[in-house]
Amino acid sequence: MKTRLTSINLLDELAQPEFAELFAELIPRSYPKSSLIYAPGHDRDLVFIVRQGRVRIYLSLEDKEFSLATLEPGDIYTTHTRAHAMAMDNVELLVMPTEKFFHYILKHPALSRTIMSILGDLLKQSFSIIDSLVFKDICQRLTDFFVYEALQNGQAGQAGIRLNLDLTMEQLAAVVGSSRQTVSTIVNDMQHAKVLLKEGRGVYLVPNIEMLKAHCQS
Amino acid sequence: MKTRLTSINLLDELAQPEFAELFAELIPRSYPKSSLIYAPGHDRDLVFIVRQGRVRIYLSLEDKEFSLATLEPGDIYTTHTRAHAMAMDNVELLVMPTEKFFHYILKHPALSRTIMSILGDLLKQSFSIIDSLVFKDICQRLTDFFVYEALQNGQAGQAGIRLNLDLTMEQLAAVVGSSRQTVSTIVNDMQHAKVLLKEGRGVYLVPNIEMLKAHCQS
Repeated sequence: MKTRLTSINLLDELAQPEFAELFAELIPRSYPKSSLIYAPGHDRDLVFIVRQGRVRIYLSLEDKEFSLATLEPGDIYTTHTRAHAMAMDNVELLVMPTEKFFHYILKHPALSRTIMSILGDLLKQSFSIIDSLVFKDICQRLTDFFVYEALQNGQAGQAGIRLNLDLTMEQLAAVVGSSRQTVSTIVNDMQHAKVLLKEGRGVYLVPNIEMLKAHCQS
Repeated sequence: MKTRLTSINLLDELAQPEFAELFAELIPRSYPKSSLIYAPGHDRDLVFIVRQGRVRIYLSLEDKEFSLATLEPGDIYTTHTRAHAMAMDNVELLVMPTEKFFHYILKHPALSRTIMSILGDLLKQSFSIIDSLVFKDICQRLTDFFVYEALQNGQAGQAGIRLNLDLTMEQLAAVVGSSRQTVSTIVNDMQHAKVLLKEGRGVYLVPNIEMLKAHCQS
């Protein structure tokens, strides 16, 4: 289950001189760590680009949450979904009404193409989440997540790949669509099997990625 | 769980005189009922517009399937996903390489906007599927599907709303992400509770939509 949305950094693209007019109209907004940035049914239809910090996008029903994505600087998203957006760090956004943004991109075919690619990436990622929810059990989803994070963001060393996830057990549970208790049990199993070693708060060591991959089948 | 993709009919849009050049380049293709049109990893990256018949879009792993959408005339889709496409009727498609299609839409801002709206609708529908998979049990998903179909495609009469789903129990199971056995059991329960009456192959009567909506809570 991937959490990185897309490989396209819109901040880089918008820094091009031809987008100066658009860039100047983006409104900067700041949000402290852990604050709710947008909830579904937000009264304005806005697009926002992350300039600094990470933003968690998640679905919520009563006390249950499910993470759809973690936005990073350069990612774009919209308030016009059924998802919540929460600041994982101190966050800076660049905001614009969707109508106005559409107006600009229709004048700039290159930007229009970028946005279509991003929408395509988002769709592919949604399919990947659906695939995982339908065909995989929690153990496999959790393993996939650790493997993906290890390969994308881990630091390889002598002892294995070190991961700084900066996620609580609750947040990890929301990533794989399960409860904190179930995820804790599986992470403990992984530690007993020595395929994942917890080194600190949110810090894990993967001694052997192939053993981790095969863990749920054993 | 909705199966209709979007309210936009691309065939109507492409019938406008300004798209004559694009329309002329679309390649017609025919597929008999029940044939597999595209599988993931198709060697060409194509877009296709449904001209006639219904196309089922689904994920598949080993012997398990999960339906993402039912395409109808006017809907557009692409081969470049992890989904399968199967002809539910005798199907006619209009096909074009994605690169070429992109080239056209970038020259036509109005079309570009339509495609972005369709991608947005697809994303919203994906979120709706994820929401349903994470937060709802099979009974509620099945109920949501019957209620949606009754309201969208049912024929209201004296005895209630009549539905011609033209789906087997296997296909119904693939819509809600469950097994044929589980879905059969729930449909039998619904019949005993008289909230859904089976009148024939794939034909159902919903005597009272509010009672059907409340069924799983009872």
